[in-house]
Amino acid sequence: MSKLTIGIIGIGRIGKLHAENLLRHPLATVKSISDVRAESLKEWASSAGINHVTNDYQELLIDSEIDAVFICSPTSTHTDIIKEAAKAGKHIFCEKPISLTYDHSLNALEAVEEAGVKLQVGFNRRFDHNFKKIYETVKSGTIGTPHIVKITSRDPEPPSEQYIQTSGGMFMDMSIHDFDMARYVTGSEVEEVYVQGASLIDPVFSEYGDTDTAVMTLKFSNGAIGVIDNSRKAVYGYDQRVEVFGSLGSAAVQNDVPTTIEISTSEGVYRDKPKHFFLERYQDSYVQEINAFIESILSDSPIACSGLDGLKAEQIAKAAKESYETGKPVKLESGIQVKR
Amino acid sequence: MSKLTIGIIGIGRIGKLHAENLLRHPLATVKSISDVRAESLKEWASSAGINHVTNDYQELLIDSEIDAVFICSPTSTHTDIIKEAAKAGKHIFCEKPISLTYDHSLNALEAVEEAGVKLQVGFNRRFDHNFKKIYETVKSGTIGTPHIVKITSRDPEPPSEQYIQTSGGMFMDMSIHDFDMARYVTGSEVEEVYVQGASLIDPVFSEYGDTDTAVMTLKFSNGAIGVIDNSRKAVYGYDQRVEVFGSLGSAAVQNDVPTTIEISTSEGVYRDKPKHFFLERYQDSYVQEINAFIESILSDSPIACSGLDGLKAEQIAKAAKESYETGKPVKLESGIQVKR
Amino acid sequence: MSKLTIGIIGIGRIGKLHAENLLRHPLATVKSISDVRAESLKEWASSAGINHVTNDYQELLIDSEIDAVFICSPTSTHTDIIKEAAKAGKHIFCEKPISLTYDHSLNALEAVEEAGVKLQVGFNRRFDHNFKKIYETVKSGTIGTPHIVKITSRDPEPPSEQYIQTSGGMFMDMSIHDFDMARYVTGSEVEEVYVQGASLIDPVFSEYGDTDTAVMTLKFSNGAIGVIDNSRKAVYGYDQRVEVFGSLGSAAVQNDVPTTIEISTSEGVYRDKPKHFFLERYQDSYVQEINAFIESILSDSPIACSGLDGLKAEQIAKAAKESYETGKPVKLESGIQVKR
Amino acid sequence: MSKLTIGIIGIGRIGKLHAENLLRHPLATVKSISDVRAESLKEWASSAGINHVTNDYQELLIDSEIDAVFICSPTSTHTDIIKEAAKAGKHIFCEKPISLTYDHSLNALEAVEEAGVKLQVGFNRRFDHNFKKIYETVKSGTIGTPHIVKITSRDPEPPSEQYIQTSGGMFMDMSIHDFDMARYVTGSEVEEVYVQGASLIDPVFSEYGDTDTAVMTLKFSNGAIGVIDNSRKAVYGYDQRVEVFGSLGSAAVQNDVPTTIEISTSEGVYRDKPKHFFLERYQDSYVQEINAFIESILSDSPIACSGLDGLKAEQIAKAAKESYETGKPVKLESGIQVKR
Repeated sequence: MSKLTIGIIGIGRIGKLHAENLLRHPLATVKSISDVRAESLKEWASSAGINHVTNDYQELLIDSEIDAVFICSPTSTHTDIIKEAAKAGKHIFCEKPISLTYDHSLNALEAVEEAGVKLQVGFNRRFDHNFKKIYETVKSGTIGTPHIVKITSRDPEPPSEQYIQTSGGMFMDMSIHDFDMARYVTGSEVEEVYVQGASLIDPVFSEYGDTDTAVMTLKFSNGAIGVIDNSRKAVYGYDQRVEVFGSLGSAAVQNDVPTTIEISTSEGVYRDKPKHFFLERYQDSYVQEINAFIESILSDSPIACSGLDGLKAEQIAKAAKESYETGKPVKLESGIQVKR
Repeated sequence: MSKLTIGIIGIGRIGKLHAENLLRHPLATVKSISDVRAESLKEWASSAGINHVTNDYQELLIDSEIDAVFICSPTSTHTDIIKEAAKAGKHIFCEKPISLTYDHSLNALEAVEEAGVKLQVGFNRRFDHNFKKIYETVKSGTIGTPHIVKITSRDPEPPSEQYIQTSGGMFMDMSIHDFDMARYVTGSEVEEVYVQGASLIDPVFSEYGDTDTAVMTLKFSNGAIGVIDNSRKAVYGYDQRVEVFGSLGSAAVQNDVPTTIEISTSEGVYRDKPKHFFLERYQDSYVQEINAFIESILSDSPIACSGLDGLKAEQIAKAAKESYETGKPVKLESGIQVKR
Repeated sequence: MSKLTIGIIGIGRIGKLHAENLLRHPLATVKSISDVRAESLKEWASSAGINHVTNDYQELLIDSEIDAVFICSPTSTHTDIIKEAAKAGKHIFCEKPISLTYDHSLNALEAVEEAGVKLQVGFNRRFDHNFKKIYETVKSGTIGTPHIVKITSRDPEPPSEQYIQTSGGMFMDMSIHDFDMARYVTGSEVEEVYVQGASLIDPVFSEYGDTDTAVMTLKFSNGAIGVIDNSRKAVYGYDQRVEVFGSLGSAAVQNDVPTTIEISTSEGVYRDKPKHFFLERYQDSYVQEINAFIESILSDSPIACSGLDGLKAEQIAKAAKESYETGKPVKLESGIQVKR
Repeated sequence: MSKLTIGIIGIGRIGKLHAENLLRHPLATVKSISDVRAESLKEWASSAGINHVTNDYQELLIDSEIDAVFICSPTSTHTDIIKEAAKAGKHIFCEKPISLTYDHSLNALEAVEEAGVKLQVGFNRRFDHNFKKIYETVKSGTIGTPHIVKITSRDPEPPSEQYIQTSGGMFMDMSIHDFDMARYVTGSEVEEVYVQGASLIDPVFSEYGDTDTAVMTLKFSNGAIGVIDNSRKAVYGYDQRVEVFGSLGSAAVQNDVPTTIEISTSEGVYRDKPKHFFLERYQDSYVQEINAFIESILSDSPIACSGLDGLKAEQIAKAAKESYETGKPVKLESGIQVKR
């Protein structure tokens, strides 16, 4: 294979983003898209040079020309589509989380294993320039053995009430990125989670049993200790920082900014706020994760962010929720593993 | 009273530091010092213009010219001296912690209350330019209601084995400053503590039941959540940062540096490491805490960092130790209060 | 016109860059390219979807479907092509400088005026996020009346000897961007130039009467004073900074960096070097200048960086050279103006 | 000699500052002070422990117990006092400039040479932590051969009209510090100066033939090129930065700040303005220059900032003024040297 023919299932905000990046990729062709709102997407698809638009994703699965599918539909549909796509021999790129239920996710990944296709989970932040640099610095040994990992992840504005209802809760929807980041930068597994959470921004969160602010402590199998702080509303913008402190030093990344301006007046010295939200901040990481996915398939090399990575993060999210609800630290079952 | 006559009890590293700052203060006179090693201090005292050097601190307490004493002797002697000094009508500046035992501390503070003298605890960091600015920024309402408080406090090098044996453990010896900082910047009380700790730097710590690395979660009565990360060894120097994140923004202070140099070469861009340790980093705060103490007494105004502040921090340290040992979050008894 | 059909003349490094950006632009079609090495470009062109490749740029000028041409051929060919393209009614994007000879440039711009077509000069830095922010900050009045303008512009590595021979010299080849920047951020004209230059990096520069290091003072018509420092070799990378100091404050932009990493070890604190060179550093500005050009033509609005801007910068470069050679400040003739 | 007995001539703002620093110095005794306003200083002197206060500085010169004098009187009196003090065998610390007239300064220094006493000129910035680090970095060879030196020096507020009349003009009064800094960090002599200056802040400067804003280009004997920008009014505070760019890299220092606070709100990210003015900014450098002076005398080692250094800076200031007035670069006479 020298070029990849791709179908995209689900053309919401993130599906469209992937579509646009794939359309620019020299080794990818977007042949078909499916969405429940197929009709309203025809004009956009046509101008983008995508000729096949359907509301039935099965059409993509039976198309023998399609090598891989991107699953960008609502979370509740993921595992069924994964299983069908795997059976149809398609490689799979699936948005996170795989599902809101651990057993369903495990089930889907087993189908993938069985079919021998590749599956990548959309933890795009692994492909961000800053976090990749942290990862590489830790891996290089420059800062020695990791002792403390600190992740700050705050959204600029809370989601809508409608979104809250189906998001799976902050841990599964938002913190899950940070759980993956924690595993990514330390190269170690989480053994225990403790969450102190609260609903400080808007009571709507607690109405749905959700939380909007949390500090989470992680214990890693290599001895390191991690802490993640999350907020659904940082008025100054999207706050995305990571620090790894180790026996030989520390490595930290700050927020990206729109410009490096520094304005000094009689009032003080002003700088830009961080890049506003994930579409701006992680723009390039979405391109890079697609590059990695295509490269993995074309060269038959390992996936950079596998289904197991997705499952592990979901497991931590589930434990975090339990800790939040019980007020106690929760140990994770070890040995979770997809048959390989 | 227009000037304060002072006696210093205990002339170790910190006692000498206070002595030197007091000697430069225009409204203070250091009349006497006492130390078990009195003999060896005579030359230094004489050159500093301190004529009375004794190994019996009682001599300072019966001297009616002495208005206030600085207690800089080993922690185990603090409460006895406090009680005697209070009875003798001396105002008291006491190094932290008041004691390693909550009841002893409470007892001593009750004696202080009864005697109607003033007592300041040596949480010098409250007087540091950076942390004071954080405090003022939070208090001014600029960042709204505090939601998350993050304190990083890492020493450049671990203490000696000898020190570890009598330090009272990391929580009482080192973290106690951070517990006070947490209360100071939030203006709120800690209700619950959870500690994830480990001995990652040197097994000597665990030999004495101590820890060298910890991440601690605090729950505040105003709803905020705090996290402190401590390490006994940051190879790049003394790491002292605080961040308060609130409903209207965040306020953060970085480390102080010896110089603002930035050297750019083909290898990268280099800056100075933080100021090495507390004597350099907090040099000015030691001067400021003395200024505040003297000012409080001369103008009969409230103490900036009271005995109750000392007691509260000790209470948190005790709970932290319990959490570390049990692996569970520990709630603090509320209503702890010295009779006033 | 709702979409622009474009021909590109000269497919070297910069021509190819423009081609790739134009190919991604939704409102542009690259119909033809011409280059003396046409044969060797056919494969690239074909894969990029450009069907017409020729070694005779006249073919582009007589093609009535082509609305605009990009002139990316060697500087010595610019003015002839501009005149022919203008006569043929094509809008023109021309790389800087227009020519190495003031009269030739003026001549070409007069032909453009006469033909009533639009011409944009490739001062891409005006479209850079940082410098645009400086421009907007100054224009908004935030920093008051500009008093001092400082521009640092240093290349990471010197050009080849072959390049030096035909570059027109540092002032016309490199500083010209800074002369334009000076006019752009101040919104004022340069009245006088003084240059202190030297050949400190490599004697090869002086062999060709060129210089590799210079500090240039500019006097502006609005009273402000400017200073530009140039070097052909900054070992730490491409150094591109601007500061405007005014009556109400200052605005400064720093270099862009690949990542925001900060690595602290016992050796010190390390950060990334600036983005290496213009292709990385100004990647987005090349996209933005094309957006502006296409927008100007489609909406028939003024060009953001006109031929007159190109001419003015060349005039300053010429005066700078004279100052360097005579060791004296050189006044610029005022009133230079293309008939409009 | 193991301790230095000192007299201070002139107790204005800077004289008082030196007095207070000397009073704290363990190896110095301030025995006498003289000032034309002696009467009004008696109370301050008495509280500071200085018993001898006179309006006749000759009394200090004939006092055989006095080892050294600090000359902090008005500039116009410096050279006469230097000559008399040298004759009386006193070591001399003299505030900058030595005089406003080159010949007078030279004359005074010759008297110093003849008498064999030591003289230090008050270029305190050489003793500042930041600039000393720049000096050391350059000297260590880390950044190779200096090519470009950039000095920014801007005052937070212009002096009074009365001060302007007797200051000797911006070049002699303010820029002179920067001329010395240029020589200090490069370790090279200035051969040529070119000034572009203007009166942009207040017309009162031009009324006295003075300027308030200037950009000055320096040519050094080692080939480097320097640029200094001065302003009498930076509304955001005292702006004091230096950058040296060389063949192997660059070294730059930024402004010192009162705190490292960073406040992020919906409006942007705010930091502190620089330390307000020289008393705050250079507080420690005044202590260090006194330490160096006392050390040089007690150990009979070379003066860190000699009379010749003072003279050289005055020579550059004089040339700068000439360049400003004539609009042309001015070459400095080489070979200026005090007999040694």
